[in-house]
Amino acid sequence: MQDFHFHNPTRVIFGRNKSIEAGETVIQFGYQALLVYGRESIKESGLYQSVTNSLRAAGAEVVDHGGVQPNPTIAHVREGVEKAKSRKLEVILAVGGGSVMDEAKAIAAGATAECDPWRFFSLGQKPERALPVITVPTLAATGSEMNGNAVITNTETRQKLGMFSPLLYPKVSILDPSLTLRVPPNHTAYGLADIFSHILEPYFNGADPVTPVQDRLAEGLFQSLFDIAPRLRQNPSDYPARADMLWASTVALNGILAAGRGKTHWDVHLLAHSLGALFNAPHGGALAVIIPGWMARNAQKRPAKFDQFANRVMGAKAAEEGIAGLKEWFRGIGAPVSLGELGIKESDIPAIVENVMDTGGGGKYTQRADIEQIMRLSL
Amino acid sequence: MQDFHFHNPTRVIFGRNKSIEAGETVIQFGYQALLVYGRESIKESGLYQSVTNSLRAAGAEVVDHGGVQPNPTIAHVREGVEKAKSRKLEVILAVGGGSVMDEAKAIAAGATAECDPWRFFSLGQKPERALPVITVPTLAATGSEMNGNAVITNTETRQKLGMFSPLLYPKVSILDPSLTLRVPPNHTAYGLADIFSHILEPYFNGADPVTPVQDRLAEGLFQSLFDIAPRLRQNPSDYPARADMLWASTVALNGILAAGRGKTHWDVHLLAHSLGALFNAPHGGALAVIIPGWMARNAQKRPAKFDQFANRVMGAKAAEEGIAGLKEWFRGIGAPVSLGELGIKESDIPAIVENVMDTGGGGKYTQRADIEQIMRLSL
Repeated sequence: MQDFHFHNPTRVIFGRNKSIEAGETVIQFGYQALLVYGRESIKESGLYQSVTNSLRAAGAEVVDHGGVQPNPTIAHVREGVEKAKSRKLEVILAVGGGSVMDEAKAIAAGATAECDPWRFFSLGQKPERALPVITVPTLAATGSEMNGNAVITNTETRQKLGMFSPLLYPKVSILDPSLTLRVPPNHTAYGLADIFSHILEPYFNGADPVTPVQDRLAEGLFQSLFDIAPRLRQNPSDYPARADMLWASTVALNGILAAGRGKTHWDVHLLAHSLGALFNAPHGGALAVIIPGWMARNAQKRPAKFDQFANRVMGAKAAEEGIAGLKEWFRGIGAPVSLGELGIKESDIPAIVENVMDTGGGGKYTQRADIEQIMRLSL
Repeated sequence: MQDFHFHNPTRVIFGRNKSIEAGETVIQFGYQALLVYGRESIKESGLYQSVTNSLRAAGAEVVDHGGVQPNPTIAHVREGVEKAKSRKLEVILAVGGGSVMDEAKAIAAGATAECDPWRFFSLGQKPERALPVITVPTLAATGSEMNGNAVITNTETRQKLGMFSPLLYPKVSILDPSLTLRVPPNHTAYGLADIFSHILEPYFNGADPVTPVQDRLAEGLFQSLFDIAPRLRQNPSDYPARADMLWASTVALNGILAAGRGKTHWDVHLLAHSLGALFNAPHGGALAVIIPGWMARNAQKRPAKFDQFANRVMGAKAAEEGIAGLKEWFRGIGAPVSLGELGIKESDIPAIVENVMDTGGGGKYTQRADIEQIMRLSL
């Protein structure tokens, strides 16, 4: 185990219909709020109305910022920053999935900065302040509800990049599983794959592979996803299963499982982000496609850890069998397991390799030959 | 899963020799500090000098409050409160084991209150304020370093009672595994049993037994203790194993594993506390003695959960075999597994039953007949 600092100050309010507490939560931080959301579907579901009603009932004034894209863009972040600055907004409320939460964080950092917000992503510049962020996730997937991470896409430079700041932990996240009951099966599968990847990358790609406590916790959380998936295949509106999935998504990336592993190299995410940036591939779908190929390519580099995963998590004898079992699991939950299913062809591989190299490739596990081989294994 | 609130604001600084950061950490909260510690052994080890040097180097003034007992007493808490009030101290620094941390929290609450601090324990009165607490644990066991709990003994009323307040989460805990390298084998065993119990009680005694995500995490953490124990039996000064044990102790009781389980009935602790109050039994030792008997008595009440524990954690077919395996594990790590080993005789059982009933017994699993039977099973 390596030395570490851990501090996760996010307050979680978890439970059925808790989203009606959005208004009273927001006004603890300010009365002038930016409401960040994605598609108009939250109006059809009634969520938009219930949240804005709760905000108004609490005395908050709300500026609308809908239309966040699945791979949220820096252009749309800039529009949000402009609204926050010109209207002197005090607090950002995100109602939506990971894209919405990430854009809300980027706006929160940008709203108190002089510089263009893309600098936080492209140059690794650290924000000195940020507006408080409250989240109400409508999807169990990214874990953005309890960490200081955000990922944003620049469609001009074709880059999808992340940032982290301790200032960006949501002050409060209201986790209401009932908001996730109508998530369609494909997005449920993407969410499960995303959660899986958040456990998997620190597990395999932490700087220190000898972390028995963290490993055992991670292995338990992997197994909980195996428990959850069939319940949701059988009944997508199974509230207890949705609650389990939402809490699993939050714990997977709130820092507890990664503490002490040293810096995690998010190599699988790096590859998946390129598929998002180039082909607008759904994040969780891209991860499910890439993970087995990435594992096959890397199993020789840390064989003991891949065997441990196979034995303890997959009930398999050795790495290869474990990887095959995981691919079958992804297929069984309805996630894509080939680039073809994402509409990506063999002839696209060179462009993917270039994009990965441009956006952070070249690390320990992401040489050109690795990327190309992983993509071929993922065809 | 039940609805819940989760908020753990403790900042953790984890790593070798990090205790020298005590001074710079304390002065973030105040320059007038009460240094709470236990035996004079921290002077022999040099820890007292290095901590007080770091405090003075940072410009802090230190009032000494040593002599905390293994079952810390309200009388000694009152002395600490008196020092804090009369000297207008601003921050409490605990350097020691769970007893020291718990006493520091009780002093922190008492120092800003008008009332006698025992009211927080005996009457469940909630503190409205508290001085900031910083902890530097020297023992991996109680998890007090990352929660808002404190347990104090009143030797006059012969009661050992707990309190919880969100105000009592340490602001910062400096977790330095090197401070635990010389913990003697019996206290290492007590610590392992204590950590085990902190995972076990929410697992079996949460109000809602259907918590698959929390269960999987708990089962992983149980197994990590099985990994750690033999390493420390073989080499008590194995730094990585000490680091693993310290982090396991912290995660076990920082709220993550209990969130969503509903209120936990700390029945095993209730019984162990009586052995502490009446016979000054070491807390972890008392737990190791009681757990198997408590499990045997209760396995019929939630058979599915006890079988799950046996299958997943102990690799056993059913509850009974799992309980026997756990008792063997306690014996193997060097923990006591009978009341006799604690110097407690069959003739003491009636007094134990009375004490448990006086201090909170009578709950679902702690009827007189249960207590008596569990004690008989623990002879």
